[in-house]
Amino acid sequence: MFYRKVAILGPGLLGGSLALALSERGLAGEICMYGRSERSLAPVRERGLPFTLTTDPAAAVEEAEVVVLCVPIGAMGALARAILPSLSPFALVTDVGSVKKPVVDEVGAILAGSALWVGSHPMAGSEQSGFAAAHARLFQGAVTILTPESGAEAQASSEPDAGITRPVRPATPHGTVEAARMLWEAVGSRTLMLDPATHDRLVAEISHLPHLIAAALATLPADESLQLVGNGFRDTTRIASGPADMWTEILQVNRTAILAALDTFIATLTQTRTALQNNDAAAMKSLLVEANHMRARLGPPTPRSG
Amino acid sequence: MFYRKVAILGPGLLGGSLALALSERGLAGEICMYGRSERSLAPVRERGLPFTLTTDPAAAVEEAEVVVLCVPIGAMGALARAILPSLSPFALVTDVGSVKKPVVDEVGAILAGSALWVGSHPMAGSEQSGFAAAHARLFQGAVTILTPESGAEAQASSEPDAGITRPVRPATPHGTVEAARMLWEAVGSRTLMLDPATHDRLVAEISHLPHLIAAALATLPADESLQLVGNGFRDTTRIASGPADMWTEILQVNRTAILAALDTFIATLTQTRTALQNNDAAAMKSLLVEANHMRARLGPPTPRSG
Repeated sequence: MFYRKVAILGPGLLGGSLALALSERGLAGEICMYGRSERSLAPVRERGLPFTLTTDPAAAVEEAEVVVLCVPIGAMGALARAILPSLSPFALVTDVGSVKKPVVDEVGAILAGSALWVGSHPMAGSEQSGFAAAHARLFQGAVTILTPESGAEAQASSEPDAGITRPVRPATPHGTVEAARMLWEAVGSRTLMLDPATHDRLVAEISHLPHLIAAALATLPADESLQLVGNGFRDTTRIASGPADMWTEILQVNRTAILAALDTFIATLTQTRTALQNNDAAAMKSLLVEANHMRARLGPPTPRSG
Repeated sequence: MFYRKVAILGPGLLGGSLALALSERGLAGEICMYGRSERSLAPVRERGLPFTLTTDPAAAVEEAEVVVLCVPIGAMGALARAILPSLSPFALVTDVGSVKKPVVDEVGAILAGSALWVGSHPMAGSEQSGFAAAHARLFQGAVTILTPESGAEAQASSEPDAGITRPVRPATPHGTVEAARMLWEAVGSRTLMLDPATHDRLVAEISHLPHLIAAALATLPADESLQLVGNGFRDTTRIASGPADMWTEILQVNRTAILAALDTFIATLTQTRTALQNNDAAAMKSLLVEANHMRARLGPPTPRSG
């Protein structure tokens, strides 16, 4: 596999790592990175990498076979509109957003018929951010979720329902999904497929809510406790170092699914509180044993690189 | 520093690691390990280490200069009673329990005048347990909290108060604390001192509550989410792999302090729930920024060894 030109729109951790991974593996003739300002591109320029750099999104995607939107979720729609005039109709366009249903709907509506669009979520973030933290091995062993739209669902939602008719979009073509799968697997990631809404619900449980919990826990200790902090507390709260602006946006955009997960979590804690209050050893142990079993199913962490 | 004989009572992760650390550094002429059954000592025997092994606690401590109680919190009192007849009055006796006030009170009352007693809490646990997980570097870079009793507090609590007279125990002698400090620093740990009740309150915040939170979070994901689990979720829930029996006991014994921390935590989550419900970006970001600041103060995790 070899791409003549790949356009990576957004020089952050994920966009930068994808560019480095493609470059290191010799998978692209030209890698063009778009940043919204010269300042945002400065860290890339300083590394002296063989990338074309531009602040013009339309110029970035000209003749690109692959276009990856690597900007904050709230900026995806405007970026899709900006690149529309110069997109090749056969370009694969995908993204790296952590919430999929709103992005897939918005970008999908803009690009309909103008490019081959499917959403992606490479689950390879880190508590670090920016091009400075980017590295070619970021996707190695990580899972990338592809979120094609199913024709059946699109049809179902287009049927007149209580008088509301929704716009119809056909199912994401198989070839588009395959093209995205090949891209992410080429940089070392495993791929799997979920429909956008299911993605958002599951990721709320295993990524967004845990981020919120880690953040709430990190704010808890009194100053005098900090001297006692060991690796347990450090690991439990590690992800709370993630960029606050990006995570605020994720929490906002996926808040319905996160609220549902948070309610379940608060209910579990409230039960646990009752068990503590009543010194109910059986109830406490039952939670801890269930947690042991769940953890045993997860396997060890993949080694951190970069 | 060289001990003629050290008795380590309990062949688990902490006791085993202490024995290995003392042995590897050549700090003891004899290391005697007590286990409550031949079966519990089998993993030690199989390693062919130069330790004396016994199921008789009184024999284990005979002529020992240092005695370390490495059994579950609930077993400390009975063990202290069992070794009492053969303890040297100049032996340093300490422990490794994760909750200190009840242990210090119980063991202190039993050993009063019969040995030099001070509580210790090496914060070097792990999600693993048992002698199989023990290693000589476990305490390297870890913090060990020593919990001497202050004379002032003992006096205050001995004054007639609402008709109740509590037994008086003098402050822990400086020499006893120094002896414990030297032991833990000899195996690579940093030490600091806290009175037992303060220890329990602070450790509830940075160890016991985080364990409970990690356990509750580990039980949350639906089966279909497990395929998506990345290092973020693995790290956030790592400590939930800890032994359920040991942690049930810790939760029970320190439940007053843990309940107070849990109530603060539930209140934070409830506020966060309101922020999500109202799509209040400023409130969400404020939590995430505070978490960023707190995390920045913690520094990186110490590398895992063993």
